[in-house]
Amino acid sequence: MREEGAAPLTPPPGESPIVVLVRPQLAENIGTTARAMANGGLFHLRIVAPRDGWPQQRAWAASSGADRILDAATLHPDVDHAIADCHRVLATCPRPRHVITPVLTARAAAETLREATSRDLRCAILFGPERAGLEAEDLARADSLVRYAVNPEFASLNLAQAVLIMAYEWWQAADATPPRQLQTHRTQVASKGDLENFMGHLIAELDACGFLRNDAKRPGMLRNLRHWFGRGEVTEQELRTLHGVVAELSRGRMRRGRPDPEGGQ
Amino acid sequence: MREEGAAPLTPPPGESPIVVLVRPQLAENIGTTARAMANGGLFHLRIVAPRDGWPQQRAWAASSGADRILDAATLHPDVDHAIADCHRVLATCPRPRHVITPVLTARAAAETLREATSRDLRCAILFGPERAGLEAEDLARADSLVRYAVNPEFASLNLAQAVLIMAYEWWQAADATPPRQLQTHRTQVASKGDLENFMGHLIAELDACGFLRNDAKRPGMLRNLRHWFGRGEVTEQELRTLHGVVAELSRGRMRRGRPDPEGGQ
Repeated sequence: MREEGAAPLTPPPGESPIVVLVRPQLAENIGTTARAMANGGLFHLRIVAPRDGWPQQRAWAASSGADRILDAATLHPDVDHAIADCHRVLATCPRPRHVITPVLTARAAAETLREATSRDLRCAILFGPERAGLEAEDLARADSLVRYAVNPEFASLNLAQAVLIMAYEWWQAADATPPRQLQTHRTQVASKGDLENFMGHLIAELDACGFLRNDAKRPGMLRNLRHWFGRGEVTEQELRTLHGVVAELSRGRMRRGRPDPEGGQ
Repeated sequence: MREEGAAPLTPPPGESPIVVLVRPQLAENIGTTARAMANGGLFHLRIVAPRDGWPQQRAWAASSGADRILDAATLHPDVDHAIADCHRVLATCPRPRHVITPVLTARAAAETLREATSRDLRCAILFGPERAGLEAEDLARADSLVRYAVNPEFASLNLAQAVLIMAYEWWQAADATPPRQLQTHRTQVASKGDLENFMGHLIAELDACGFLRNDAKRPGMLRNLRHWFGRGEVTEQELRTLHGVVAELSRGRMRRGRPDPEGGQ
């Protein structure tokens, strides 16, 4: 924690946006905010006129390890001081106010912030105090408002959850995770040749046991089986297991054809 | 709260997905989960083997008014019972496990759930206990895993926050809020004609005061002014204020030209 007036802690232009907590009430909420920031890759925290003063040990206790964000947080007497070095300021505002300002969804805000930071602008996002939210004077400092698209009949989020949604969208706006992937660890998705090899094994055993004896129905039954086995991306490991299942079922059938020495099943 | 075995509380097919909390520990977290569900329009809660039993009054106290979700929640002895009537089951899994299952981001999962519910499939999302998360046996019941795209160096979310992200993405997947809009309340964005009318007023006064007297620079200066006033979407109300500003500044200048009867500014 650094007092303003000491070495200024100004993130370089183009860094991740600064979270500005305006008049927060509970130190625990400052801590859980730091955790939510870390989840979404936001690291710069400024605190304006916290009700109970700053620093507060309870914030560190509630941060689940996001200590460095709290350690580097700066304290400011008012919003103007907190945003003086910023080029772009957004303000979260869950309720409609009588202000004339562009209003963005959280997702659009995240895109705006990514675009602005890519142009080396220093950005900040204002979050108001628990319950009351930002005042009209705070909102007039913002270039745009952010209003989350959530269930309008149940739109209230606590402070850390509001920060989490914004941090999450910030991360999504640059995330390169494939939206869908198959987790296979030490095995690979089987090739079509591997799959066809298994189908040959299966069909041979089904022919041997008589399951496919109805020549009229045989092509349709085989198509059904092909459709089923082709629907998922079967892995090489799963194919080995399936080969084993077919082999063992066949052997069991052959064994059952002989007198069973154990007399049981 | 209804005991299983009483009238079954099965949402109609195609309803919003069911949130299944598997072996949750703290009743408070069940309450904050209900709140997060309401934020994103999820209303069906099933609770599997909660550590401290169910119902727990502390859940209602923590739900910030999402009582109806808790009132309607059902209790189940294990995951199989909780998902028996479901057609599609996703499981949240923050850490890589040795399972071979499709893995979706939260956003892709939400799209999948919207697509499945639109086909009248009953869907569920499993959330594991605090800290430990879901076990391999739980994950094997799921069609797909959901792994949130968050900061990999700080990926841990508490239970309610994990539910919030999924509920938020569920809502986004069908939300029709324009990503960007100008909030104007009782006024309207000014037309280009209104703006041109103001520009004429401004230029006339600037000519009168001599600000534009350099004929070589005049066209460039006017272009600068036009660019500035045209950049934002100025409202009719703002234009009226700007007309007043120009008029009053001009009158002030003229007054200063005369002897000031008050002797002050």
